[in-house]
Amino acid sequence: MSNRRTFIKQASATGALSVLPFTQLFSDSPKTKIMNNPTHWADGSRLVVSVSMQFEAGGQPDNAESPFPQNMQQGFRDLPAATWYQYGYKEGIPRMLDNWDKLGIKVTSHMVGTAVLNHPELAKEIVRRGHEAAAHGMNWSSQYNLSYEEEKKFIKDGADAVKQVTGVMPVGYNANWLRRGENTLKILQELGFIYHIDDLSRDEPFVIQVNRKDFAVVPYTLRCNDILLIEGKNFSAGQFVEQVKMEFDQLYLESAQRRRQMSISFHDRIGGTPQMVKAAHDIIRYIQDHKGVSFKRKDDIAKMILQDKTAVRE
Amino acid sequence: MSNRRTFIKQASATGALSVLPFTQLFSDSPKTKIMNNPTHWADGSRLVVSVSMQFEAGGQPDNAESPFPQNMQQGFRDLPAATWYQYGYKEGIPRMLDNWDKLGIKVTSHMVGTAVLNHPELAKEIVRRGHEAAAHGMNWSSQYNLSYEEEKKFIKDGADAVKQVTGVMPVGYNANWLRRGENTLKILQELGFIYHIDDLSRDEPFVIQVNRKDFAVVPYTLRCNDILLIEGKNFSAGQFVEQVKMEFDQLYLESAQRRRQMSISFHDRIGGTPQMVKAAHDIIRYIQDHKGVSFKRKDDIAKMILQDKTAVRE
Amino acid sequence: MSNRRTFIKQASATGALSVLPFTQLFSDSPKTKIMNNPTHWADGSRLVVSVSMQFEAGGQPDNAESPFPQNMQQGFRDLPAATWYQYGYKEGIPRMLDNWDKLGIKVTSHMVGTAVLNHPELAKEIVRRGHEAAAHGMNWSSQYNLSYEEEKKFIKDGADAVKQVTGVMPVGYNANWLRRGENTLKILQELGFIYHIDDLSRDEPFVIQVNRKDFAVVPYTLRCNDILLIEGKNFSAGQFVEQVKMEFDQLYLESAQRRRQMSISFHDRIGGTPQMVKAAHDIIRYIQDHKGVSFKRKDDIAKMILQDKTAVRE
Amino acid sequence: MSNRRTFIKQASATGALSVLPFTQLFSDSPKTKIMNNPTHWADGSRLVVSVSMQFEAGGQPDNAESPFPQNMQQGFRDLPAATWYQYGYKEGIPRMLDNWDKLGIKVTSHMVGTAVLNHPELAKEIVRRGHEAAAHGMNWSSQYNLSYEEEKKFIKDGADAVKQVTGVMPVGYNANWLRRGENTLKILQELGFIYHIDDLSRDEPFVIQVNRKDFAVVPYTLRCNDILLIEGKNFSAGQFVEQVKMEFDQLYLESAQRRRQMSISFHDRIGGTPQMVKAAHDIIRYIQDHKGVSFKRKDDIAKMILQDKTAVRE
Repeated sequence: MSNRRTFIKQASATGALSVLPFTQLFSDSPKTKIMNNPTHWADGSRLVVSVSMQFEAGGQPDNAESPFPQNMQQGFRDLPAATWYQYGYKEGIPRMLDNWDKLGIKVTSHMVGTAVLNHPELAKEIVRRGHEAAAHGMNWSSQYNLSYEEEKKFIKDGADAVKQVTGVMPVGYNANWLRRGENTLKILQELGFIYHIDDLSRDEPFVIQVNRKDFAVVPYTLRCNDILLIEGKNFSAGQFVEQVKMEFDQLYLESAQRRRQMSISFHDRIGGTPQMVKAAHDIIRYIQDHKGVSFKRKDDIAKMILQDKTAVRE
Repeated sequence: MSNRRTFIKQASATGALSVLPFTQLFSDSPKTKIMNNPTHWADGSRLVVSVSMQFEAGGQPDNAESPFPQNMQQGFRDLPAATWYQYGYKEGIPRMLDNWDKLGIKVTSHMVGTAVLNHPELAKEIVRRGHEAAAHGMNWSSQYNLSYEEEKKFIKDGADAVKQVTGVMPVGYNANWLRRGENTLKILQELGFIYHIDDLSRDEPFVIQVNRKDFAVVPYTLRCNDILLIEGKNFSAGQFVEQVKMEFDQLYLESAQRRRQMSISFHDRIGGTPQMVKAAHDIIRYIQDHKGVSFKRKDDIAKMILQDKTAVRE
Repeated sequence: MSNRRTFIKQASATGALSVLPFTQLFSDSPKTKIMNNPTHWADGSRLVVSVSMQFEAGGQPDNAESPFPQNMQQGFRDLPAATWYQYGYKEGIPRMLDNWDKLGIKVTSHMVGTAVLNHPELAKEIVRRGHEAAAHGMNWSSQYNLSYEEEKKFIKDGADAVKQVTGVMPVGYNANWLRRGENTLKILQELGFIYHIDDLSRDEPFVIQVNRKDFAVVPYTLRCNDILLIEGKNFSAGQFVEQVKMEFDQLYLESAQRRRQMSISFHDRIGGTPQMVKAAHDIIRYIQDHKGVSFKRKDDIAKMILQDKTAVRE
Repeated sequence: MSNRRTFIKQASATGALSVLPFTQLFSDSPKTKIMNNPTHWADGSRLVVSVSMQFEAGGQPDNAESPFPQNMQQGFRDLPAATWYQYGYKEGIPRMLDNWDKLGIKVTSHMVGTAVLNHPELAKEIVRRGHEAAAHGMNWSSQYNLSYEEEKKFIKDGADAVKQVTGVMPVGYNANWLRRGENTLKILQELGFIYHIDDLSRDEPFVIQVNRKDFAVVPYTLRCNDILLIEGKNFSAGQFVEQVKMEFDQLYLESAQRRRQMSISFHDRIGGTPQMVKAAHDIIRYIQDHKGVSFKRKDDIAKMILQDKTAVRE
């Protein structure tokens, strides 16, 4: 049994392993003592949870993908699909906003530029309630295939729209379907952004070098994300609750030994339905029953990790 | 905490926000008092639930989509798929009719014209039991791509078939896969319809202007609809029960503060199976255990909202 | 409330409604009395359940569909998929046979001719254990697109293979994916078959006229069938249990008022896995806890219904 | 009832049946006595469970399949998908390693050659913790379509990479998607391998003849495998737990009467997520609560079965 515990932390050639403790993370062995109030975050949190509320509806292109069969004859508009998107701003975000208030948490809202311009009161209300206005591109479209100049304009226009409407200049970025291109991070750094989320590689934030300066990565999630699981009709709302709780249970356990961050994501027209707001409520109440957990906006996470000498650096 | 509650309702440029209360909808905070018998409906209901029972089987085209692999060699009829559809009128609707009687509720039945003509006794029986005969087109086919005149004939023929067989002229409409075209609402208004359901944008009925007159929208659902979840084999019957109950829980909570409507939909050959009738039974019994909930036909909802000065208007 | 109960049974123009009682089927109303031992079957059963065990593996063509990605380069054999099929005769059917013995039930085994010829001992053992040897075509291939003569040979060769190996001449038939052609029933009647199962239209057996003679239809199922739900990875084994129990609950309730038959289907390589045999065991034990239920082979059901004057006739 | 029990084991023409006991496997009948400590394994185990931990991430080709939509414009890299794979070596394998230590089990790790070369410290750590280093090809690519010489080099290069980095020469093999070609087993035998896993036909290991010598087959699983169920978004983590427990329950029952092996498989980037490590933990703790179960590396299983005179031989 002893050789399991004698692994010496050593820098690996790839860097990937350099910060892995490889210690036992589990608490139910009688030999393992867990601190009453362990912390691996600068502010004393044991585990940080970050919730996203994507604001996209109203900015989607005509006939954007939806739960309807994708078999429309060319040249016609998919009118019921349009009403499915309208739900996002008419019901979804207002309902989620009330839920976050009730639960007492602040979230990060990645906002598509055209969605903000089409529904400015809603964007303002998100900010008034204390949530983060982050950027999500000017339109609901790919950017990985744009030229450097095109992409820079695409990102800047979207951020400017958020600033113009809400008064807040975004510092965080999320690309359409997470699909940044080879220039995206450079552009973000040039434009004053401090973090992006289009990375699934770790369960904690980390710091990378962009244009030879520190830039934060606050990882996103597909596992605890309504768009893959619920819109795709793969999971019922109850399965979503169960799976996200299992994710939390493990990360909470690990958080006794090292820095851990959990990410949960909701989209206006999906996570804003009654069944999914009920799901989010049940998940977050469950999490809040655990000591040492704090819910944070991603800009606050980015700022904290950028100043942390113990941050993972790649 | 206080700024959460100080959002002032203001008309937004889009109109979408004009009626959103943005108040906390939740009851479990000690600071929130819920009325014992709140109502936001003219008839004193706290929450209105509307169940659909689509009558389509017997009107489908040859080789219509079914759970069978869609790989038939050209020129042959898919005979087992035809029997899958026959189930809808031989077992499904009779079973559902008995279930609604047992539960003591009235539902809305959108009827395809050819299905009604092929099975007139069943259409009559639906009406005899007190349910609403609504229109669903003359055939099981798209109408968004028809000319104005073609579409008008398509809608009128279907409604006339229902009238001829059941004695009832439909006042409500549902397009194939909800896919109305740009002219559909004008045609419906011209033909004397008072509402349609092909809209997913709100959890309450609302009033729009068609040909400069009031026209009601009684929203439909994909989330609590057997066709996407059960026919697609995405959900088991038990998952359907669990998800629809979660939908109800949240809407019931919200109904303490504002007008809310819940929609549940069943199709003859899917919702009429034993496992799904059991599911519907369990869902509706659960809902009936809550005070202030009423089950209504969609024509009754439309009439009530058209006369309500507080209705959402777009 | 009273008009619900006054529907008079009347022959409909289509015949579909002629045997529907349209009476309330439910037992939990205080006004409804259920007989202690109701029966709508000639042998006194309240509800008849029929289990299928398809014997197909070993008869499949090269590179038949399987859970493996269907992306093989042309000209190569899918060797792991072949072992997936081998599981059906090496583990699946033997395991199911022991399960049926343990549970004390007899089932119907539709057998592909080539599967029987390749694994004769297994086919013999199925019959030795008291189960029905039924026909399932000579090969694992479509028959709806064959000429009359080709199809007759296809069916006869398969039945002869079963007879030659097991000593039993099949009287029941199941087409590949249920896809019979326009001539299939005539051919079956000519060859001496007394029933087929390729019909999903009712939850009870019924009698049709083929070549002006009575022919039985013993309906099959997709809803309680491992091939759509489990092989497709749509359902876990536990979901299958839950859904089939819900199906039973409703049919058992209805069986107090009219003749009802429940069908459950398992395939060698899918229903024969440990998790699905556990599922079948739990389902059948649950069903056996209810009074008046009998498990029957489909040939016994066909014989009983063919002699029943009260049978549904189409 | 007695004829059920009188089936005489007899060699079948195919050999497939020659070792099937066809005895009742079940313990809950009062007439069946189960030994307190039955064993059908040379080392006294009642049931052997083998866990796989595939080490593939870091070795995948550009734009390898992932949960992201497979709709990238040609000529661009799928950057977020790359981070999804990075998760496998940054979080997944380290987390699983700690879980195996906590649970006190040793597993088999099939390692892609390029993954090992790119992350040598991780490969070494797997071996340091006592797990088996097995081979999985030089690259993440098909081998069934290679010539004999190409395939031999492909297998040998992969094995040499493992040996060079970890000091251990693999004796077990797993082909990409289990898709071996017609020459694979001959090549493996020539290179000194003693077993492969690309076979799903039995729930126990067996011995085949390759180049006229004994070669072991240690069957793999799709049913208890994270890649089909979890990556495909078919199952939630909780459904995975439930289904694998059902699989175990049945195999444990059968293990009272004959040799049974259970296989469970996890992949770095899927099984290494928090929710799935929680799932694996719950599954294995459940299994460990049963007497007579041992967890074994596949090389140990292969060695044991190769020396067992009672092994199934094909």
